[in-house]
Amino acid sequence: MTTHAQRLANLGITLPTPAKPVAAYVPARRAGGLLFISGQLPMADGKLTASGAVPSAVSPEDAKSAARLCAINAIAAAVTEVGSIDRIAGVVRVGVWVASDAGFTGQPGVANGASDLLVQVFGDAGKHARAAVGTNVLPLGTAVEVEVLFEVH
Amino acid sequence: MTTHAQRLANLGITLPTPAKPVAAYVPARRAGGLLFISGQLPMADGKLTASGAVPSAVSPEDAKSAARLCAINAIAAAVTEVGSIDRIAGVVRVGVWVASDAGFTGQPGVANGASDLLVQVFGDAGKHARAAVGTNVLPLGTAVEVEVLFEVH
Amino acid sequence: MTTHAQRLANLGITLPTPAKPVAAYVPARRAGGLLFISGQLPMADGKLTASGAVPSAVSPEDAKSAARLCAINAIAAAVTEVGSIDRIAGVVRVGVWVASDAGFTGQPGVANGASDLLVQVFGDAGKHARAAVGTNVLPLGTAVEVEVLFEVH
Repeated sequence: MTTHAQRLANLGITLPTPAKPVAAYVPARRAGGLLFISGQLPMADGKLTASGAVPSAVSPEDAKSAARLCAINAIAAAVTEVGSIDRIAGVVRVGVWVASDAGFTGQPGVANGASDLLVQVFGDAGKHARAAVGTNVLPLGTAVEVEVLFEVH
Repeated sequence: MTTHAQRLANLGITLPTPAKPVAAYVPARRAGGLLFISGQLPMADGKLTASGAVPSAVSPEDAKSAARLCAINAIAAAVTEVGSIDRIAGVVRVGVWVASDAGFTGQPGVANGASDLLVQVFGDAGKHARAAVGTNVLPLGTAVEVEVLFEVH
Repeated sequence: MTTHAQRLANLGITLPTPAKPVAAYVPARRAGGLLFISGQLPMADGKLTASGAVPSAVSPEDAKSAARLCAINAIAAAVTEVGSIDRIAGVVRVGVWVASDAGFTGQPGVANGASDLLVQVFGDAGKHARAAVGTNVLPLGTAVEVEVLFEVH
């Protein structure tokens, strides 16, 4: 049986170290068997990788890659909280916000960047309910923000 | 005692067959006694029934009807997952996004289309916490998107 | 040991009486150990205290104060539901929507108004996962809407 950790390695993904909480909120909060992850931005090495609205400032393909990175950051936050990726039982819900020009209606395609990655890592247990929406502007000017709710052992 | 199924019949509602999942996300995901339904659009017979912002492209009344249809589609997704509407114990939370022109602030009235239907079907157990918000644009150009969290036996 | 109620008193906060539900949705809905609070507006004495987008109509500082008021209203709704603030075990998740001009990306700073208050009242148990986003328009024209998920005994 392939473990979640092996799948991550097969995908060539090294989890980043989550940023320290700088405010009253925290990257992850457990309640019973549910682990709520704060809204993640597409940060890599402390820098935002996709800024502005889709498609005028960020292409749909780049926004999809940004959503994938948000999901990786969400996994990192979860692992930091529970200690090991193999204590994550599955993915329950994913919320995706896409900074969108008025005429852009392809948010589901962008959100697939997060959804596909989560299923690649967690297999069938990674299949989740999802809400993807557009909005006019997001924190720090990010093109995408992703919130994940995990189930944990 | 009136069952949920009887109430549906009394309302003249036949639940649609949910669309097959076409991506890594699924229409419904259970976690313990909670059943998370993916964001639903006002689809009927595979077609979007309300496109564009409220009120310039869709009237508030039509958007309210669209929210009701989203809620019906959410019930259908739940029933497909758990097998019978009478395994649904109640409605916990409803999230409603309304594509809105800058000056439109009547999102709660639109969202009532979903909330009222859920209480008509589930009675007191259908009363739920709710967040209704506006946004500039939604997937496929839908006027309304509704997310539902059910409690299940 | 300082109780939640003592902390509230030390902060000089008197909880308001929540508005009666006027629709099918309710201010608070419990599911197991989770208590979902409906999206709260910055209402005081039945009046909205912050209307319009940040920063053109409402300054970021005033929006932060409005977020704090939303959080107080969420605590009031929770206490009305469970009977005593000391039955609230902690704060699990906070969702914050900020009505934002296109160029405003300081939603996290606004949301801190809610997060900081919750930690002042509930201590370490008040630390929570959070998603803060911008949007073009919100119900009644409010500048801020805050949704809270509590854990209860």
